[in-house]
Amino acid sequence: MNVSVDRPSLKRVSVIGLGLMGGSLALALRRAGVAEHIVGCGRAELLRRGQEMGAIDSGSVDAAESVAESDFVFLCTPVETSIGLMARIAPRLRPGALVSDVGSTKSAFAKAAREIFGASAYERVLPGHPLAGRELSGLEHASADLYAGCTWVLTPLVAETQGQLLDSSKGSLGEPPAGFTGEAAGLTAAQRTLRAALEAIGAHVIFASPEGHDHALAYTSHLPQMLSSALALTLEEAFGADNPALQVHAGGLKSMLRLAGSDPAMWEQIAASNRGNIAEALERLEAELRKLRESLGSAEFRKRFEQAREYAKFVKG
Amino acid sequence: MNVSVDRPSLKRVSVIGLGLMGGSLALALRRAGVAEHIVGCGRAELLRRGQEMGAIDSGSVDAAESVAESDFVFLCTPVETSIGLMARIAPRLRPGALVSDVGSTKSAFAKAAREIFGASAYERVLPGHPLAGRELSGLEHASADLYAGCTWVLTPLVAETQGQLLDSSKGSLGEPPAGFTGEAAGLTAAQRTLRAALEAIGAHVIFASPEGHDHALAYTSHLPQMLSSALALTLEEAFGADNPALQVHAGGLKSMLRLAGSDPAMWEQIAASNRGNIAEALERLEAELRKLRESLGSAEFRKRFEQAREYAKFVKG
Repeated sequence: MNVSVDRPSLKRVSVIGLGLMGGSLALALRRAGVAEHIVGCGRAELLRRGQEMGAIDSGSVDAAESVAESDFVFLCTPVETSIGLMARIAPRLRPGALVSDVGSTKSAFAKAAREIFGASAYERVLPGHPLAGRELSGLEHASADLYAGCTWVLTPLVAETQGQLLDSSKGSLGEPPAGFTGEAAGLTAAQRTLRAALEAIGAHVIFASPEGHDHALAYTSHLPQMLSSALALTLEEAFGADNPALQVHAGGLKSMLRLAGSDPAMWEQIAASNRGNIAEALERLEAELRKLRESLGSAEFRKRFEQAREYAKFVKG
Repeated sequence: MNVSVDRPSLKRVSVIGLGLMGGSLALALRRAGVAEHIVGCGRAELLRRGQEMGAIDSGSVDAAESVAESDFVFLCTPVETSIGLMARIAPRLRPGALVSDVGSTKSAFAKAAREIFGASAYERVLPGHPLAGRELSGLEHASADLYAGCTWVLTPLVAETQGQLLDSSKGSLGEPPAGFTGEAAGLTAAQRTLRAALEAIGAHVIFASPEGHDHALAYTSHLPQMLSSALALTLEEAFGADNPALQVHAGGLKSMLRLAGSDPAMWEQIAASNRGNIAEALERLEAELRKLRESLGSAEFRKRFEQAREYAKFVKG
């Protein structure tokens, strides 16, 4: 038998939820050769297609059953669904098994993990969020390339009562990541393996606290989504359907409406699980719009436009 | 001499303002072979570069002088600048010369044309707006392809006192276009030639009233621009500069910020010349954002997201 010191192995992996995210993860782990066996969980039809595509080796329609022998479990459903599933699989997990997820918000999931796993939550669960495209959904769009080059945020749990991470290597408590960072103290061996496997499928792994993640993403992801949807609603109110005026634009409109095509079911759960941060971001944006409106055509307007242009340059593609 | 019945000729053309729009127009007219001589107007440095690029045949730094012998004049500067230039060139125009422009708003320009040319405004001026990309500016980005495939809106003037178009072919008053349409009544021979020349450079010509144009574009062009700039300002307020949190996004943010890179000088003039319509559109959008914010995570939120997704599909690329 060959033993590679470079290639991490997740051994037996469960992927619960075979949509775009879960299907792509299974395909990517398979291609990178970092899983020995992948168990899928989802509707029978999806399990059949997942096996045909070579994404999974076996499958179960029952989440608890699908994790019974696995070393790593990825919950790949919308946030609230994943929280419910975590509670259901918890009693059936092997003692050393590590649970992760791909949900778009992390605080609610982290809170649930602490409730379910108590003091051992920090070592049993390592929540994650791959920042990969979401306008398409479903297993039919899954691709082993989805995560290549993407940023994958891992949000180690902070023991709620202590506000600190356990640094197991030192047998003491480490600091939780303040903001986004390339390293995190106190990861267990399984968590380090998880990280290495994600890097093996091409992801760029960074760390943040669940709360820091949700606050930042409210601005960089959830706010743009709200804007795009609100723009579509505004146009509908102004023009109704089939009005040729809607087609008179230079292309910028189309790019601003792209996100509005995202999955409403997923966004309902994101909005519910990050309500406070999103409301804060929206209020700030509403204030900026009001200020622009009140300054239309003035020197102040020009100044704000110039400021916006400068700042927009900071955002990397 | 060959006389082609198919190819329109603008004969002698003045292009005032040699930036992205004017430079591209000159290059496109030249390539399509629909102009015999192109006179450029702009700073000496731009005239030199325009001649080197083959965009113009001759040039003048003086706008009035540049139009003295021309049959067609295109004002290719921001809206308010074009209005000032129209007043300056008016006394020097040849009797049959037709003035057009490429400004982003049309009502203020149309109003100025009526003031300057009085009863003959409708036949002396045919305002226009090509919907071509604007994130880049300057002659260095000019291209003969800029207008290929673009929509070019022409907004025939309506005699202010009559609210109607003169249909010169019938010697009677025609109806102004209600909304956007592929045809317009009452165009003069020169105006039909202008239309044909624009089609020869690849533009898809449609017609609207100046007021109808400005109301629609407030929603399809100016509103998306305001949103993009307001998003940049909100992010700056939340994160400041150099915060790595700003880079944690899935790409949607970048597409929502693309328009924020547009030219503030141009947008100051657009905002000033279409203030009422833009304010109306912004107020409606602010109301939609408020409703989304107040419904975060509820069934109403989901319903609105689904409605937005359906409507966004109507917008063609």
